[in-house]
Amino acid sequence: MRPKEHTHKYFLTAGECNAQRQMPITLIAQRVIEIATEHANILGVGYSDMIKFNSGWVLSRMSIEMTRYPGVNEEYSLTTWIEGFNRLYSERNMEIQDGNGETIGYARTIWVAIDMDTRRPSDLTGISWLAETINDRPCPIAKQSRLMPVKEDEATLSAQHRFKVSDIDFNRHVNSVRYMDAFLDQWDIEFFDNNDISRFEIQYIHETHFGDKAHIRTKYNENIAETEILVNETANCRAKIAFKSKN
Amino acid sequence: MRPKEHTHKYFLTAGECNAQRQMPITLIAQRVIEIATEHANILGVGYSDMIKFNSGWVLSRMSIEMTRYPGVNEEYSLTTWIEGFNRLYSERNMEIQDGNGETIGYARTIWVAIDMDTRRPSDLTGISWLAETINDRPCPIAKQSRLMPVKEDEATLSAQHRFKVSDIDFNRHVNSVRYMDAFLDQWDIEFFDNNDISRFEIQYIHETHFGDKAHIRTKYNENIAETEILVNETANCRAKIAFKSKN
Repeated sequence: MRPKEHTHKYFLTAGECNAQRQMPITLIAQRVIEIATEHANILGVGYSDMIKFNSGWVLSRMSIEMTRYPGVNEEYSLTTWIEGFNRLYSERNMEIQDGNGETIGYARTIWVAIDMDTRRPSDLTGISWLAETINDRPCPIAKQSRLMPVKEDEATLSAQHRFKVSDIDFNRHVNSVRYMDAFLDQWDIEFFDNNDISRFEIQYIHETHFGDKAHIRTKYNENIAETEILVNETANCRAKIAFKSKN
Repeated sequence: MRPKEHTHKYFLTAGECNAQRQMPITLIAQRVIEIATEHANILGVGYSDMIKFNSGWVLSRMSIEMTRYPGVNEEYSLTTWIEGFNRLYSERNMEIQDGNGETIGYARTIWVAIDMDTRRPSDLTGISWLAETINDRPCPIAKQSRLMPVKEDEATLSAQHRFKVSDIDFNRHVNSVRYMDAFLDQWDIEFFDNNDISRFEIQYIHETHFGDKAHIRTKYNENIAETEILVNETANCRAKIAFKSKN
């Protein structure tokens, strides 16, 4: 009745690939959010269930680690399960497999429920039965680390970005995936020809809105980028990205 | 063996909706491209078949007309078929239905095959048997019109745009859908709160590449926008967008 795991199989089309003819990490993030939504719907804690309490899930943190990215015309699947649940948040993990059933990556996510009017966290005690669906399937990637501010004098990259209509989602704030685009767009196409993303860790701190002028500040050193999006000098979103050379 | 129609059912998640809590027309365009790809694969003229001849399909024109957009948690489906085929291009249509089987929109697309090295059109005579799969299912929306240049002194809107890594696709040019974003990002969020897109017509003329600085020039008058993306004063892409008031 309440399956502890949920799997969705996909097929990667040419139109979905990036310039390196691989699955973009932003599409993996979309699939992560999609499969979390599907499993929540199946478990009875989806959008239509939560809105009865004027509440809705918001993604607070996400970490994705990939050892290999699917290529064009490849099948792949995501499997999701709940690792932890308390009255403040839900921890949900994903395993990504290729068409042969080989594991090629994992994701960890943390979801908070917020009140739709106050935009403040809701108490999850009312759905405490969800803890019964906790699954001990292993997720052998590191938990989210504490993402630190990037000091202005440490920044090695800097960019300005204005969020537009196409960046805005259902909750009238910037789409979770468009923050990732804004971070990754600091590098050029040749950089991604030579480097893969081995880990992408992101923390959503404050909502960003249509028309907000953001400052992106990055400290990049030895294949690790620590980066943040600031609006009016407040960090709305932080990320830590680990790259590895393709050769 | 070679089905004349192909249908794919989908479910619209909250994470996929725009600020108006509807399916974005850019996601409809993604689904249009996806279902065309799937049907081509089934018919034996997909990426892996065409690449044997060093050839690949490129979207040349697309028109989408919607009477209603799916909302959150709604099911919808696309059905595609080939309306016409000759040695230069293939005409492929789509019907979009809601979860109750009501038709809510149609799309028309024109696909050209190009040589992967020269980037010039390939002759499709080698797959002329594809004409046997032509289907006379009706598509009651207007065919693509001739999209005209926007003269500088007629422009009522104007914007600059630099294409970044996240805009670039498999063929190392700007993703078909990101041109649509660039066009639509000329308006603000309140405009889309008050207006729906009733028809979106786009013509891809020349490839745009990473780092290209584009000038977007628009003539907007009585709910019709004629708009183009110019790089070095050459129109790489044109669109005509018809809006209708939500009230």
